[in-house]
Amino acid sequence: MRIAIDAMGGDHAPDEIIKGVLEARELLDTDDELILIGIQDDIESCLSSVNADTNHIRIVHAPEVIGMNEVPVESLRKKRKSSIAIMARMAAHEEAEAVISAGNTGACVAACQLRMRNLEGVIRPGIAVILPTLGGPVTMCDVGANIACKPINLYQYAVMSSVYSRQMLGIDSPRIGLMSIGEEEAKGNDLVKKTRDLLKSDPGLNFIGNLEGRGIFDGTCDVAICEGFVGNVVLKLTESLVGMLFSAVKHELMARSTELALQFKPVMSEIYKKYDYHEYGGAPLLGVNGTAFICHGSSKSRTIKNAIVASRKYHMNKINSRITDFLKNSAMRPNSV
Amino acid sequence: MRIAIDAMGGDHAPDEIIKGVLEARELLDTDDELILIGIQDDIESCLSSVNADTNHIRIVHAPEVIGMNEVPVESLRKKRKSSIAIMARMAAHEEAEAVISAGNTGACVAACQLRMRNLEGVIRPGIAVILPTLGGPVTMCDVGANIACKPINLYQYAVMSSVYSRQMLGIDSPRIGLMSIGEEEAKGNDLVKKTRDLLKSDPGLNFIGNLEGRGIFDGTCDVAICEGFVGNVVLKLTESLVGMLFSAVKHELMARSTELALQFKPVMSEIYKKYDYHEYGGAPLLGVNGTAFICHGSSKSRTIKNAIVASRKYHMNKINSRITDFLKNSAMRPNSV
Repeated sequence: MRIAIDAMGGDHAPDEIIKGVLEARELLDTDDELILIGIQDDIESCLSSVNADTNHIRIVHAPEVIGMNEVPVESLRKKRKSSIAIMARMAAHEEAEAVISAGNTGACVAACQLRMRNLEGVIRPGIAVILPTLGGPVTMCDVGANIACKPINLYQYAVMSSVYSRQMLGIDSPRIGLMSIGEEEAKGNDLVKKTRDLLKSDPGLNFIGNLEGRGIFDGTCDVAICEGFVGNVVLKLTESLVGMLFSAVKHELMARSTELALQFKPVMSEIYKKYDYHEYGGAPLLGVNGTAFICHGSSKSRTIKNAIVASRKYHMNKINSRITDFLKNSAMRPNSV
Repeated sequence: MRIAIDAMGGDHAPDEIIKGVLEARELLDTDDELILIGIQDDIESCLSSVNADTNHIRIVHAPEVIGMNEVPVESLRKKRKSSIAIMARMAAHEEAEAVISAGNTGACVAACQLRMRNLEGVIRPGIAVILPTLGGPVTMCDVGANIACKPINLYQYAVMSSVYSRQMLGIDSPRIGLMSIGEEEAKGNDLVKKTRDLLKSDPGLNFIGNLEGRGIFDGTCDVAICEGFVGNVVLKLTESLVGMLFSAVKHELMARSTELALQFKPVMSEIYKKYDYHEYGGAPLLGVNGTAFICHGSSKSRTIKNAIVASRKYHMNKINSRITDFLKNSAMRPNSV
């Protein structure tokens, strides 16, 4: 299969992106092809600086770059030859089976939605992230693609995330929780109450009810569904809180004894490794007609490598056709709510 | 002043509540009175079991108790003689200058709103919590009183939290951030965009713009404003994530060496102490006509003691009249948006 990667996207582009691509190549099949999209000269000089073997690697020149802080839709309109725009067009024209970017998330989501269109039956795509927890990995959707959610959107996020959790993580019957402000049925806003009714009425889903904020990390669920505003806040809060706590621990240890701090270092590394979301290599934009993975702007080579491997698994496990099959057999229609 | 405490509220009632009251008494003035509301026999036997000096302590009998998991409004209607219902009535009838409960939050909020009514000019009360962060304490409002927020509600939460932060934490000109999904002006849902306009147009507020999820813990702001659904998820997530991380650290340490784990214990205690939200002793229901503090259901004596001290400070610092003064001089009216 052909996997196209935005070589210009992210805080460490193009070096770390290209490094990740080279690392991933070792893990792929001989008939796989990795396509680097970006400024040809930059990519070539980076490849030659590490004396890279460019077997199975192809460059597609994109003369423009969308910056991390540009306004998504506006920048896409202006920069039709940007790596993100060309990447999405390649997916749409079936010139790549999967696309990956660590660039401007908004622009990436907008380009993929616009060019790739939606999977049959899907109304709005959503971004799904995997959060590592003590109780195992939790798939949370949406984390920012859709901040004007309707109940049917959340229902479809549950369907898609459930298929994703099963195929990617091997969880047989993922327990689906709906983010709310209390576990009791009566609690939550209008969106939550209507979504709850939809989820409850589908016997094909293992819906376990409302989740409180603590429910994400306490092993209650495998899938957490929420609208994009809440999911985005949760995701960014989680990242920063983990960072703050480890800083606090480090600070406190250093104040006591450098020796103790040194002893604690490998413990910290081990925890980072176990609960590191980079391990999952980016987040799929579930519901577009193709395979699109979005990586964190801070991604280094390992995340890119993992995203390439994940996008391949996504494609090979036919996640999209499993989603459309489920939706075809579902009683829930766009006009259900 | 008279401070009335729901002796039956919370997971550790009445023992820990009464213990907290006894601890607080040592810190108050001789003309302060602490009123314990609840089942008289239970309170008396608890007081006598610790040979308590009951000077400055009065019991008000409430024969009914609202359970932690009862449906708020329904339980209030049924249990008019519950400690929560009587507590709110005492505040309304000026039989207590401050009220405190660690009981059913929903019932407590509903009772206070119903009986105490709103402060002049306030449309909907909101719950404000103080989150300890590396950058100092951050006041977040609302965390669950209002899940159908309008821009004017969020504007008023900013006003009230700003006064609260100044008077309670001594922060001179609190930096107010508005929770959103991106820092850029164009980002956010309709509620955020309209609230942003209100906050920007008030020169009396130190509004710094949109906050992402990470903005709460990175020292960017002193006050974080959000609607109750988001705030509630953030609060409960934060609690559970901190717990999960410390469990992970402990687990990892134990697997390596018991000795190392023992050495780390005081470090953990120190961090707990520094970043312990119990230190702030509960959350005020900002915007009701009186002083009402809500404590976590898991509150032990220290939290109750701190809540009593905080409610006294709230009252003495005339936070409510400062809020009404601000709102009187504000150009923002209920029909502003």
